[in-house]
Amino acid sequence: MQKKLIILFFSFISLAAFADDGSRLWLKYDLIKDVKQRENYAKFTKFITTSSTNATILKASEELKNGFEGLMGKKVSTIKKADSQVGGIILEVSEKQIFTKNLANDGFAIFSNKGNIIISSKTEVGVLYGAFELLRKVQTGQSLSNISVISNPKIKIRMLNHWDNANGTVERGYAGSSMWKWNELPFRIDPRYIAYARANASIGINATSINNVNASSRFLTAEYLEKIKAVADVLRPYGIKVFISVNFRSPRTLSGLKTSDPLDPEVRQWWNEKTKEIHQYIPDFGGYLVKANSEGEPGPQDYGRTHADGANMLAEAMKPFAGIVIWRAFVYNADPNGDRFKEGYEQFKPLDGKFDSKVIVQVKNGPIDFMPREPFHPMFGAFSKTTLGMEFQITQEYLGQSTHLTYLAPMFKECLDTDTYVKGKGSEVAKVIDGSIYNNQNSLMAGVANTGSDVNWCGHPFNQSNWYAFGRLAWDYSLSSEQIANEWIGMTLTNDVVAKKQINSIMQKSLPTYISYTYPLGLHHMMGEGHHYGPEPWLSKSGRLDWTSIYYHRADSIGLGFDRTGKLSNALKLYSNELIESWGNPEKCNLNYLLWFHHIAWSKKLSTGNNLWDELCFRYYDGVKQVKVLQDEWETLKAHIDFETFQSVQGRLKIQEKEAIWWRDACVLYFQEYSKMPIPKNLTPPNRSLEEVKKLVEIYHLR
Amino acid sequence: MQKKLIILFFSFISLAAFADDGSRLWLKYDLIKDVKQRENYAKFTKFITTSSTNATILKASEELKNGFEGLMGKKVSTIKKADSQVGGIILEVSEKQIFTKNLANDGFAIFSNKGNIIISSKTEVGVLYGAFELLRKVQTGQSLSNISVISNPKIKIRMLNHWDNANGTVERGYAGSSMWKWNELPFRIDPRYIAYARANASIGINATSINNVNASSRFLTAEYLEKIKAVADVLRPYGIKVFISVNFRSPRTLSGLKTSDPLDPEVRQWWNEKTKEIHQYIPDFGGYLVKANSEGEPGPQDYGRTHADGANMLAEAMKPFAGIVIWRAFVYNADPNGDRFKEGYEQFKPLDGKFDSKVIVQVKNGPIDFMPREPFHPMFGAFSKTTLGMEFQITQEYLGQSTHLTYLAPMFKECLDTDTYVKGKGSEVAKVIDGSIYNNQNSLMAGVANTGSDVNWCGHPFNQSNWYAFGRLAWDYSLSSEQIANEWIGMTLTNDVVAKKQINSIMQKSLPTYISYTYPLGLHHMMGEGHHYGPEPWLSKSGRLDWTSIYYHRADSIGLGFDRTGKLSNALKLYSNELIESWGNPEKCNLNYLLWFHHIAWSKKLSTGNNLWDELCFRYYDGVKQVKVLQDEWETLKAHIDFETFQSVQGRLKIQEKEAIWWRDACVLYFQEYSKMPIPKNLTPPNRSLEEVKKLVEIYHLR
Repeated sequence: MQKKLIILFFSFISLAAFADDGSRLWLKYDLIKDVKQRENYAKFTKFITTSSTNATILKASEELKNGFEGLMGKKVSTIKKADSQVGGIILEVSEKQIFTKNLANDGFAIFSNKGNIIISSKTEVGVLYGAFELLRKVQTGQSLSNISVISNPKIKIRMLNHWDNANGTVERGYAGSSMWKWNELPFRIDPRYIAYARANASIGINATSINNVNASSRFLTAEYLEKIKAVADVLRPYGIKVFISVNFRSPRTLSGLKTSDPLDPEVRQWWNEKTKEIHQYIPDFGGYLVKANSEGEPGPQDYGRTHADGANMLAEAMKPFAGIVIWRAFVYNADPNGDRFKEGYEQFKPLDGKFDSKVIVQVKNGPIDFMPREPFHPMFGAFSKTTLGMEFQITQEYLGQSTHLTYLAPMFKECLDTDTYVKGKGSEVAKVIDGSIYNNQNSLMAGVANTGSDVNWCGHPFNQSNWYAFGRLAWDYSLSSEQIANEWIGMTLTNDVVAKKQINSIMQKSLPTYISYTYPLGLHHMMGEGHHYGPEPWLSKSGRLDWTSIYYHRADSIGLGFDRTGKLSNALKLYSNELIESWGNPEKCNLNYLLWFHHIAWSKKLSTGNNLWDELCFRYYDGVKQVKVLQDEWETLKAHIDFETFQSVQGRLKIQEKEAIWWRDACVLYFQEYSKMPIPKNLTPPNRSLEEVKKLVEIYHLR
Repeated sequence: MQKKLIILFFSFISLAAFADDGSRLWLKYDLIKDVKQRENYAKFTKFITTSSTNATILKASEELKNGFEGLMGKKVSTIKKADSQVGGIILEVSEKQIFTKNLANDGFAIFSNKGNIIISSKTEVGVLYGAFELLRKVQTGQSLSNISVISNPKIKIRMLNHWDNANGTVERGYAGSSMWKWNELPFRIDPRYIAYARANASIGINATSINNVNASSRFLTAEYLEKIKAVADVLRPYGIKVFISVNFRSPRTLSGLKTSDPLDPEVRQWWNEKTKEIHQYIPDFGGYLVKANSEGEPGPQDYGRTHADGANMLAEAMKPFAGIVIWRAFVYNADPNGDRFKEGYEQFKPLDGKFDSKVIVQVKNGPIDFMPREPFHPMFGAFSKTTLGMEFQITQEYLGQSTHLTYLAPMFKECLDTDTYVKGKGSEVAKVIDGSIYNNQNSLMAGVANTGSDVNWCGHPFNQSNWYAFGRLAWDYSLSSEQIANEWIGMTLTNDVVAKKQINSIMQKSLPTYISYTYPLGLHHMMGEGHHYGPEPWLSKSGRLDWTSIYYHRADSIGLGFDRTGKLSNALKLYSNELIESWGNPEKCNLNYLLWFHHIAWSKKLSTGNNLWDELCFRYYDGVKQVKVLQDEWETLKAHIDFETFQSVQGRLKIQEKEAIWWRDACVLYFQEYSKMPIPKNLTPPNRSLEEVKKLVEIYHLR
């Protein structure tokens, strides 16, 4: 009776009309509805065994206990030794086990052994990762019989970059304000910090930089180090190291030094001492993340020094410690006659080989700035003596922010899977990043976080999938977009087979759909000024020419696109010959990158059989049509999705449709002024004028 | 058996270890733990009866059903007619009932009749208010036997002012970003809008202005009116009218008019049409809220016109409709030789009698700017021909933001209860506001909202009590601070009698404690520049002299305080003779206002027996000591408070202690430079220098 009641209780909890507010992310642990399935799992999850008192192991055991109790609707005991009991889970940190010999770093093995399931790793955090993997298996309805998993991370540092400001705002954040409550720290620990740590550990993220790369010096004061320490203490048992973004001018700002010149002995001393001080608060401090001489931020060039001088000074300060220095390559001078595409490459190429071994140069996936589609950054593969890290943007600055459904795994994958050919065929970007091509000792994949103070963390319910996908790919970039989506859907939305398939299809279609109504055929950087919301292809004046739209699309009476094959810019030359050959030839160039590299005549016939103008129109119109398809498909899912989540996505898809039409109308009407060609016959021309669309854009520029 | 199980289910739900995240505010409806008490209430709450299909009545019935089901742990049915059944609740809108004859506006009566409880009002929203009152009785453990309540609102417009910006930030918001998700509107309705509406209706708030008074014109575009309409549609059934803060320059900004001169026919036409357009979206539009010619905002004075010209133009546009125009009196010119204290009064006094009857002039409670303690604004009582509304600040810009525990009802009450003497003794500020002194047809009390996107809405758990208290006082300012606190504690934290008493005591002590370590003896406006966080009494340079600290405290070698009795400023003269006599005489002046009106010599002996310097030090030190008392008292409550809430307050009290010491040290060390007197012997001098404290303040000025 007691047992029955408890099950009843759990059933009630789970089946009661509680709306899902999204706060639990993909770690919901709701009762599995199928009793048979539940009973089957229960055979393997009778108890959890560990004799360790290590904080990380305790977190693993706690997670398994809470997870299985929720999923199975029954109590799960924690014991120190299994003795002759079977049907439980044993957590084990060991160098010796048979299965761990194939393990690297924080990899883990899960296997059946004498009636129990062993989670084994050489490290405590590896066991934690294994625990989450086991939970994932159950959350997504997979069998535990004869389980046998070996999993190793392909990238060593799997990191979130928070662009969170000291004042509580988030640069390019679309989910409320900062999740870090600096005013409450160090004395109040928001329970959300723990939820955040669990979510990250569940996907293998092991590093986080807690403040904006446009950095405030205040994060280096004792006042703030005490606060950061409190955060680090929460994250530590989950295997997450804290990094700080630093302002290069800090020695002047904080201590009144006359210079921040990296070759100045006093400045070097200052950083040595500051680094020591930080370690008094955070002994396992991850290191520094630096944006220098970029978009107005201070840096070594202010003193006639190089990026290497700046980075190496910090590396020297870090020498006594395990931490590292991550130096961003996102730099570009305001040269109206140059090509922003090339600037990071050209500034850093002469420094290849000059960076300290503690330095990782962090490079954005593409050469411009997180556009919905970019060719990979030509630095990848071209730097044989420097460890390059990947910087993806999870937050959807240019990808629909919190209102458009856009699943980003295909975008991350497109970059990682592209062959650089630097060591012949098979030299994919991923292999540059994981260090295998140039035998780097370290490796890094960073994602600019999309987390905020909103109840559901990420704004659009599907934005959570991008956080999830980033982490999974940083762990193992060979996972497919489909598999990752399937995991996420099962853990977050539903395990109904048909619904899952439908949702996965929506997710896979979402990025091409978004690109179609915003930046088809390799167009880029035409968004609303400043806020980067909505279309503004006519933007011709800004603080810098390379912040306008016309700089990038180069529309004129002849055609459209940025010729990077030689005449206007020779940026294409930065790639390997194989790519120059394919991308450099407008006949062979992948249409997705066409206008990235070529200025194409409006009347030029493309491989699709349409001329450029018609193809452009078809794509913009098709993008809008596809949003309606997404809407229709979403409607079919109502019975399977929590009501609040269903409505949230439903409402956002309506906004997406409206704004897709906005993008389409803005772009076809604007480019028509150059092409002077009619909208193809089978398409209905926009029912408003370009002036009317421009007016709409202006609204978003009003204070 | 069935029944038993359901009760069991509800018990589990309620008693399970769910942490309280504060999102439900004071409308938790958790199961009453005492079975006897529950059974007793259940006798009165067997069913809810209404035959009305009015949306507001349905909300009332839905709230009662959900509320009682939660509180009693049993199903409550809704029926159309009670017939001979007894033990239920009957909702009734009627002009005829015996009890309603004493009802005004949206007042309500609750009474026992033939075995049922009747909630009766002349209006639907009155019934909704009655429903919340009945729920409150149960939530706070009061008896329903022979219930007999008659309650009328003393103020007609009970309003929240949101200082929320279009970009999602909140000016002076300390609980995340804006709760209005403009990017998601009109198609996605955040369920929080409904929770917000319920919370407001439960305390009688019936109006809300949805955007910052530093207003963006974009709220008047069709694009945004559609969004605002969606919000208005959600709030309407809860009796809440929507107002929009307008930018006076909108005709120029939005339609390219050459001027926004309120006497220009084209401009008047523009506002007429815009107002008509708004009503097409929101037929029951509340009206405009205007900040004009204040702190850089545009206004009629830009064209040589008066505030009355500006307000009356909008009133004219509003003539065909029920809405009104609320015009803020918070104006002050940058006159270094003037006294900001007097400016609102002096600018508006000549306009008394010139405002259209549709205009309410909204005046801040005090003459400067929401300081922790201000004498009431001298406009109150001095304007016989103008309807003046009260503007309180619920958000704690100067009152500890989200980290200091400060219950504001005593501050609101202090202002409302002060006698203006304008019609002899008994002419309290409250009677100016409720319209009884000058027979105004309308009345308004507005509170600047403290709501944000944070899960718990308000940041500090106790900040919720200030939203609650504001609403309750706007409904009935005669309620005591103690009663309001008791209600809120019972609904939010605990109904344990001893704990309740202890918490109430903490709340009552909190404001005097805060004032003691920040602004004792009538000091004001010495906070950190810009962010208004922490102390900065030494601030001597700013964009304007009246934004500095030294402008207000006037510390010199002789003494401290702003002489407003004649020599420096004759601001005191703006009050009635009775007040001039008491406040104007430093011997008789309430010590709380002493330095508001007098420059007092450091060595001057006060009524306490101490000289000014010693008294100042005693108060600063006592403030810190009192924080420790609050901490100790909070510790005793652990068993009675949800664990997460307990820890949140515990952590924040630690921050409060640290910052109280910061305020104390900053102020005594700084003023000591003028007094040249020692810290009194029985006090321990600060263990740091003024320079060290200044350094701390500087951190908060770093980007």
